[in-house]
Amino acid sequence: MPELRKDPVVGRWVIISTERSRRPSDFASQPVKPTGGPCVFCPGNEASTPPEIQASRAPDSAPNGPGWSLRVVPNKFPALRVEGELEPSGEGLYDRMSGIGAHEVIIETPDHHATLASLPGAAVGEVFRIYRERIADLKKDPRFEYVLIFKNHGEAAGASLEHPHSQLIATPIVPIMVQEEVGGAARYFKLKERCVWCDIVRQERQGSGRIILEEDGFIALAPFAPRFPFEAWVLPKTHRSAYEEISEEEADALARTMGELLRRMNRVLLDPPFNFMLHTAPLKDPATDYFHWHLEVIPKLTRVAGFEWGSGFFINPVPPEDSVRYLRAEVAP
Amino acid sequence: MPELRKDPVVGRWVIISTERSRRPSDFASQPVKPTGGPCVFCPGNEASTPPEIQASRAPDSAPNGPGWSLRVVPNKFPALRVEGELEPSGEGLYDRMSGIGAHEVIIETPDHHATLASLPGAAVGEVFRIYRERIADLKKDPRFEYVLIFKNHGEAAGASLEHPHSQLIATPIVPIMVQEEVGGAARYFKLKERCVWCDIVRQERQGSGRIILEEDGFIALAPFAPRFPFEAWVLPKTHRSAYEEISEEEADALARTMGELLRRMNRVLLDPPFNFMLHTAPLKDPATDYFHWHLEVIPKLTRVAGFEWGSGFFINPVPPEDSVRYLRAEVAP
Repeated sequence: MPELRKDPVVGRWVIISTERSRRPSDFASQPVKPTGGPCVFCPGNEASTPPEIQASRAPDSAPNGPGWSLRVVPNKFPALRVEGELEPSGEGLYDRMSGIGAHEVIIETPDHHATLASLPGAAVGEVFRIYRERIADLKKDPRFEYVLIFKNHGEAAGASLEHPHSQLIATPIVPIMVQEEVGGAARYFKLKERCVWCDIVRQERQGSGRIILEEDGFIALAPFAPRFPFEAWVLPKTHRSAYEEISEEEADALARTMGELLRRMNRVLLDPPFNFMLHTAPLKDPATDYFHWHLEVIPKLTRVAGFEWGSGFFINPVPPEDSVRYLRAEVAP
Repeated sequence: MPELRKDPVVGRWVIISTERSRRPSDFASQPVKPTGGPCVFCPGNEASTPPEIQASRAPDSAPNGPGWSLRVVPNKFPALRVEGELEPSGEGLYDRMSGIGAHEVIIETPDHHATLASLPGAAVGEVFRIYRERIADLKKDPRFEYVLIFKNHGEAAGASLEHPHSQLIATPIVPIMVQEEVGGAARYFKLKERCVWCDIVRQERQGSGRIILEEDGFIALAPFAPRFPFEAWVLPKTHRSAYEEISEEEADALARTMGELLRRMNRVLLDPPFNFMLHTAPLKDPATDYFHWHLEVIPKLTRVAGFEWGSGFFINPVPPEDSVRYLRAEVAP
């Protein structure tokens, strides 16, 4: 059974994930490259995954068989387990909690070789609509405080399977990074009575040189203080707090924005491994006035080393104003 | 000129390091393996580094020539620059500051193939004494708020040169991770009137199964909530706030503790890449009563992916109680 544990100094929670337990000798070799064996996410191999939670399928197709355009399945090696009660307990000065949560995989397309950059806009729109539906569904479970949707693309970015997929983890605690964003945004709102991300969008649109592209209500920009080279954020231009309230049209516009951003990154950085993470408002504290949902995209180009792990400072060798000039094709890579 | 920039939402500072600027095409290939060329840190190649700041040398040897057992030199590609004034400035809602700081390299030994695990205890003690002297020296510069000492060992842990070395970066801002530790420890002290790390040492010594080894006033333990498999902390058993006050004898005992810890990690994990980071009290706010200096050691065994970057949660597949049993040789790896 996985367990949540809290650091007694800084309050950071970690997941001790016994489902994924490994012996020391397993770490010695790097994770294996995608094998030549059958892909567990490809059509025809539906029995290789746990039974599907949700799918978009042809009307005449049966669950857990072929005929789908998108499937959501439980992660076979979940970081947290969906069964059980939340049981907080102590051990002297330490706090722990049973490792309750949901860990799902969104298989984005039946096409093993497609990506969000190559798929037609309508198919990408379907992915962004499924995110909405999964959050809305998991929100009904009173044990969950947050749903984090994320994608690991490429082995160096942590993907263990090549077939295009994203993941979600629902947690019984609001993750510390979201808490910090909510806290910072609340302080800003108290001072200015405005959403900090709305102010960022407004200021960037006055000609900062950090806008990558704008598309039907969405903006992709390089943040002023990016942790990583070519980091990009995608935000709705008007204030939106809870991702699960996105409309059909907005999901399609988001898909076009993300598709174009990823195609530009692929062109400039030669198909880099990357992660993206969706930050939406906490499920039970919607922070409606001051939290503005956004997607953070980080190509995996540099190594994080001792200085970053020890300080929380990040050393970024590419000013965002430079990365944007490449992504806008104003200079050749 | 490098620049410090602050994220307007969470207050995290980043270093935009133009000294290390790279074109997008430079990221496409992974960092090169150590080449067969001459090592810039080896004896005889002293002219390859900037002039030394400090060295332990034979009495008859001249600076910047052979005859040394340890050298401290400025980093040739510094993340921050030592020359200039601290100049904070704004850009609408954003804050920036000139990238002032010191970035030094501690070349730990003339022996290219040695490590802190293989060097004699006295030589490792010399390394830990030089850390003390560099902090004490940089503390005199009123522009600096913190000195972070760290080590990247192995390419996967971010080392770009193979020759054994550690680094320090002095910053004009207390790093956010240290601020969080100071803040958490201050809250604990206010509640309990005790240092949280002293309480941790006390509780662990009552038989938690997380102690790796104890040696002349130092303890190496697996923390209760480790971010990474086989993460280990080394602390003085009695309360010590400022690392630069370490005595000769304590530095030697620390060297023995670290040497033994690293030898055990090498045995169990087959010479893993690793980082360590020294957390000492901030230079100007010594937090004497409640901050307890410590070294955090993290073998680089797993990849950090989208969930971690998006949440600040870490998924650790090895309970610390298990890693300790391997490191105490109670079970075979």
